[in-house]
Amino acid sequence: MGGVIDDERLARTGLARIAEPGDVALARLVQQNGAVEAWLAVSRGESGLPNQSGYLARLDGLDPSHDLDRLAGCDGRLVIPGDLEWPSQLDDLGLKAPVALFVRGLDLRRCVLRSVAVVGARAATSYGVSVAGDLAADLADRGWAVVSGGAYGIDAAAHRGALAAAGVTVAVLACGVDVAYPRGHTALLERIATEGVVVSELPPGCHPTKSRFLTRNRLIAALSRATVVVEAAHRSGALSTAAAARQLHRLVLAVPGPVTSPLSAGVHRLLRQFREETVLVTGADEIVEELGPLGSWAPDPVVAATPFDGLPPDVAATLEALPVRRPVDVVRLSSTAGLSADTVARALEQLRLLGLAVLDDRGWRLAEQSGAADT
Amino acid sequence: MGGVIDDERLARTGLARIAEPGDVALARLVQQNGAVEAWLAVSRGESGLPNQSGYLARLDGLDPSHDLDRLAGCDGRLVIPGDLEWPSQLDDLGLKAPVALFVRGLDLRRCVLRSVAVVGARAATSYGVSVAGDLAADLADRGWAVVSGGAYGIDAAAHRGALAAAGVTVAVLACGVDVAYPRGHTALLERIATEGVVVSELPPGCHPTKSRFLTRNRLIAALSRATVVVEAAHRSGALSTAAAARQLHRLVLAVPGPVTSPLSAGVHRLLRQFREETVLVTGADEIVEELGPLGSWAPDPVVAATPFDGLPPDVAATLEALPVRRPVDVVRLSSTAGLSADTVARALEQLRLLGLAVLDDRGWRLAEQSGAADT
Repeated sequence: MGGVIDDERLARTGLARIAEPGDVALARLVQQNGAVEAWLAVSRGESGLPNQSGYLARLDGLDPSHDLDRLAGCDGRLVIPGDLEWPSQLDDLGLKAPVALFVRGLDLRRCVLRSVAVVGARAATSYGVSVAGDLAADLADRGWAVVSGGAYGIDAAAHRGALAAAGVTVAVLACGVDVAYPRGHTALLERIATEGVVVSELPPGCHPTKSRFLTRNRLIAALSRATVVVEAAHRSGALSTAAAARQLHRLVLAVPGPVTSPLSAGVHRLLRQFREETVLVTGADEIVEELGPLGSWAPDPVVAATPFDGLPPDVAATLEALPVRRPVDVVRLSSTAGLSADTVARALEQLRLLGLAVLDDRGWRLAEQSGAADT
Repeated sequence: MGGVIDDERLARTGLARIAEPGDVALARLVQQNGAVEAWLAVSRGESGLPNQSGYLARLDGLDPSHDLDRLAGCDGRLVIPGDLEWPSQLDDLGLKAPVALFVRGLDLRRCVLRSVAVVGARAATSYGVSVAGDLAADLADRGWAVVSGGAYGIDAAAHRGALAAAGVTVAVLACGVDVAYPRGHTALLERIATEGVVVSELPPGCHPTKSRFLTRNRLIAALSRATVVVEAAHRSGALSTAAAARQLHRLVLAVPGPVTSPLSAGVHRLLRQFREETVLVTGADEIVEELGPLGSWAPDPVVAATPFDGLPPDVAATLEALPVRRPVDVVRLSSTAGLSADTVARALEQLRLLGLAVLDDRGWRLAEQSGAADT
């Protein structure tokens, strides 16, 4: 490790280790002075931040390069703002954006380009598990990645449904990406780390806490175009994900259930209390309908300077429609992108020249990760 | 039968017999020339209306006084516009208001002063039947009458739930009030005709038709302050009741169910398609909350000149809060009316002097029908 880039990566890893997620005071310091300066100030005890003594308590014996070694040991990589793999929609979080992300599996940014969060209760009913699994599989079939939190119940059903349909799923953890939590999901999380993405803003080895689950929920909401709540009791954490999505002006969708079920009570209250901002959905078709053919993240979708930005609209639309894993033909892409087959075919040639699209004997898909985002 | 009033009653009975419900051309003639002149013109074949030949086909052997005798034979009575018992909210239907109502049981106007329609599928599930019954019982407990259509499934569950809670229920039929349809509800309809109200715009002996079911639904919606749909398949008649309520600017409320249930599919579509105008509810408390303490029918609630109108607001509010059947004490009335106990006590004295409230050893209730609405 050496040079400016590596210093930035080490600094952000160190900051991720000493501060809790969503530390706004620290984020402001990073914004003002840069991560390297912020890290120097914090590690010397000179930051002047309200929680400086708390940071100091975690500095003893801390070596960010050790965290990065540990990350490499589980085939993980660090992703920081400015990397090609950094999902620019996280900028919507402002000062609550993560200082860094620790990632295992497929390219995070590409996977969440077209993604929907499916979240809900841990103590789900068989109804909720069945509905979440079907929704996720149907979303995967339509080319949407399924984001969730890796927990028991609805989260697991959503991840499994996407995997069963050979789709992409993203687990956003409240612990390190090498920590199997809950223990019963060791195999599931390993599978997601291979066929999908496991991501966390906490360095390797970190364990989950109640507050980390809550701060994690804002990442699920921010990464996804919409958050679907399948089952939630009155005080369910899934409602905090919905609240975060609402604050980010993301779509909040809710799947109703029997009014006699306490595990649907939180969903029904969501639909009543935030009637204007919450849409009832009963299946993947309705979710996709709400998302629109190529819904944009924000009023101005051009937020980061990467090869993805600055493309002509037709080419950008074709790029967005390209699947991450399973190749598709031009007719299917034309339907997904809402463009004529001729337009799509021309756009695909441009994307191939740019190294962004690949054609094999099964059809077209996104090119593999370009290597710009390794640690 | 003789004199002007009786001619009006005979004329409206005859018009109800020869025309189908919701005949706008005939209603316009009645509006312009009065019911007696309209009946004379129609029965002489001189109305000039588009359906005159259809009316003539039904005139052969028709004797309105025979219909009124038959009505008296089942303890029924005719209620026409201007009668104290005429529910003035029906005026919201404009030219689609019924030409007359045939009524058995308690005072119709008073029963529907505080009423909610609970409607849904005939082929209801056990979930829907259970929810509808509980809702109706809880509404009855809170002093609300339950209006429905007397059919199998949700309708029957709603009527039975209200009766089980010793509340008031109103069955609006698509046939004569002496016709037991469906046959399996003979005992239920007789019980409603005694403990509640059975009402129809069709003269005695008339049988239901598909179009009569649909036109009947507008009456259910118009009589009630809100329409609650409990279960409905995609093409359920209950959705036409909801549409009528929406057009009348009445509240439309919907009880969700499992997204896997075809009997909840119509309810969910209602909540999606008319999101702005449909409110999800899960219990009687939420229904009452939506209705408000003393919701009004229309921007200007004073629409008919009866002893009920022109009362000071506190007195009118107390009158509206009075139960039709089970007496209550001043504290309960005060809570229902949202007025202090002192104010309610003063209002009750005024209402007693007006002959509108009765006090017995169990508490206060509405006075019995004043006799102004007999045939």
